[in-house]
Amino acid sequence: MEKLQKVLAQIKPIDREVMAKTQKRLDQLTKPPGSLGVLEEIACRVAAITGQVCPKIPRKTCILMAGDHGVVAEGVSAFPQEVTPQMIANFARGGAAMNIITNHVGSELVLVDVGVAADLPDMPGLLKRKVAFGTANMALGPALTRQEALAAIKVGIEVVEECIARGTGLVGLGEMGIGNTTPSSAIIAAYTGKLAEVVGRGTGMTAKGLTTKVRAIQRALAVNKPDTSDPLDVLHKVGGLEIAALTGVVLGAAAGGIPVITDGFISTAAVIIATQLCPTAKEYLIASHLSEEPGHRIMLDFVGLKPMLLMNMRLGEGTGAALAMGLVDVALKILGGMATFAEAAVDGALSRD
Amino acid sequence: MEKLQKVLAQIKPIDREVMAKTQKRLDQLTKPPGSLGVLEEIACRVAAITGQVCPKIPRKTCILMAGDHGVVAEGVSAFPQEVTPQMIANFARGGAAMNIITNHVGSELVLVDVGVAADLPDMPGLLKRKVAFGTANMALGPALTRQEALAAIKVGIEVVEECIARGTGLVGLGEMGIGNTTPSSAIIAAYTGKLAEVVGRGTGMTAKGLTTKVRAIQRALAVNKPDTSDPLDVLHKVGGLEIAALTGVVLGAAAGGIPVITDGFISTAAVIIATQLCPTAKEYLIASHLSEEPGHRIMLDFVGLKPMLLMNMRLGEGTGAALAMGLVDVALKILGGMATFAEAAVDGALSRD
Repeated sequence: MEKLQKVLAQIKPIDREVMAKTQKRLDQLTKPPGSLGVLEEIACRVAAITGQVCPKIPRKTCILMAGDHGVVAEGVSAFPQEVTPQMIANFARGGAAMNIITNHVGSELVLVDVGVAADLPDMPGLLKRKVAFGTANMALGPALTRQEALAAIKVGIEVVEECIARGTGLVGLGEMGIGNTTPSSAIIAAYTGKLAEVVGRGTGMTAKGLTTKVRAIQRALAVNKPDTSDPLDVLHKVGGLEIAALTGVVLGAAAGGIPVITDGFISTAAVIIATQLCPTAKEYLIASHLSEEPGHRIMLDFVGLKPMLLMNMRLGEGTGAALAMGLVDVALKILGGMATFAEAAVDGALSRD
Repeated sequence: MEKLQKVLAQIKPIDREVMAKTQKRLDQLTKPPGSLGVLEEIACRVAAITGQVCPKIPRKTCILMAGDHGVVAEGVSAFPQEVTPQMIANFARGGAAMNIITNHVGSELVLVDVGVAADLPDMPGLLKRKVAFGTANMALGPALTRQEALAAIKVGIEVVEECIARGTGLVGLGEMGIGNTTPSSAIIAAYTGKLAEVVGRGTGMTAKGLTTKVRAIQRALAVNKPDTSDPLDVLHKVGGLEIAALTGVVLGAAAGGIPVITDGFISTAAVIIATQLCPTAKEYLIASHLSEEPGHRIMLDFVGLKPMLLMNMRLGEGTGAALAMGLVDVALKILGGMATFAEAAVDGALSRD
């Protein structure tokens, strides 16, 4: 709790003065003012976060938090729980989609076992920070104790602090955990009161499986009565260890002054908890894709984020965040590399409306 | 006309059998079936176009067609016509947004003067294939003769054929031409009967300028009465030289068996003419971004394309097409590089619904 309080106190609003200077530079480049839309917004945001009018291309890290979920006992997932450790091994060997995309965009990939329900052997790139062997079944009671949730948040803060100390300037959120769309749905359901609209088929549930999933979430909410005025209450009762750890990553990155790229449904559940704990953390966020998972748009609207990639993806892992890293690089290259109207002897720089 | 007829006859439907084999391979990779959405669709499309189940990463070329527009005499653009040749020089020196993005994604950039209203000096990367010094004012009569439109289509076909001969396996559409949102609006207006909804502020018109633009398009349609049952009639009466040349690029690429990435409002006007001339050409298209120009969504719906990038961009040049090239590379790297469930010893490969 002490670590969390310290980090929350460190999160400052981003620098609006630097942002205005960056927008002024963008308006002098050889293009109609504002015509690069979201790329200009990203450049301004990264400038305002880093305090540099023309930031250099950041070192990139995707942090993949892994955890298991006791609620799988209710039959809420299309895949068995054994797939979580199997996929960790696949990430460590470089065989997953997330490996291909992080390699493509030049991001490192840090794997963290914060709550896998199995003992994992040592693997390249794997940090062992296990808080518990998965959550308890939230349909019967709290998924985690409040202390476990805080411990997982602390793992996230510490991992991102270690990355920043090594030179990371841009972090992407990623996760792995069979069953983890279920707690994510429960979190957005708790905040919005919506249920059917925020529960989807995850990795590929049947229609019957979907009904089972909705009922499990209904029971979890009824049994636990999460108090939305206390984000930690929601997190420990109907969240998960990787969701708590990603909450810590968001807060730690904001406290450390680097931008964070969201991923899909599960990572955005963590973003909800993080921004409920500290609304200013939102200023450090760049939204990546809109997931195929139907509740994702409701989550992004709730936080006030707009996605830039419409890829109908529903894989998680951080694949959307990693894809968007390439677009952040482009935004910063444009800011730093384009000619101005004066340099290029092009007429008619327009003023902004 | 002979060249166009020959190319139209060469365009064949893409290979559905290869597409099915590629989808089968994608379903064996360590992810829930279909969970990579548009990335999987792109991989399948490129496979079906090239006839290879697992195509290699293609050599990429963006073709930027430049032309001027007599209709600027009506006051339809926020920038003066002199900006067209000035921007060509900027592209040749590497100072434009399009240079930054093509460099980022590893695409070459071919500049083509097919109709700039000025004599251009020799510049690196510039092909001089001028058909005319800009179009005539379409508010007073046809923008081009039918022969000029055909000559510009031929330029597009020849340029893309030269690229394919050099090894290009993926082409992006780009353009530059002060005033060219006006003929693009006229083309989609002719096909849909919509007017106010398909006319936008282009590079930054005022509200008054917007009214002027709508009236100029109304007059062009009334004076020329383009016949939508004859796409060449629409193209020469209310189109432009760069739009005709891009029509040729689309058809030439389809005939040559390589995929084409759309860009924004102007390039999609060319896609409309190309797919009206040959509906099968649509199978060779990959849509990139949704432009901020309000009529763009109407154009994409008309052709039946779905954008994957929501960047609020309205710059043209091919910037959206170039951005999407990185996503095509990712799609093909996933197809070729991910581990299968069997290779990774991951349980529970699901069958498709």
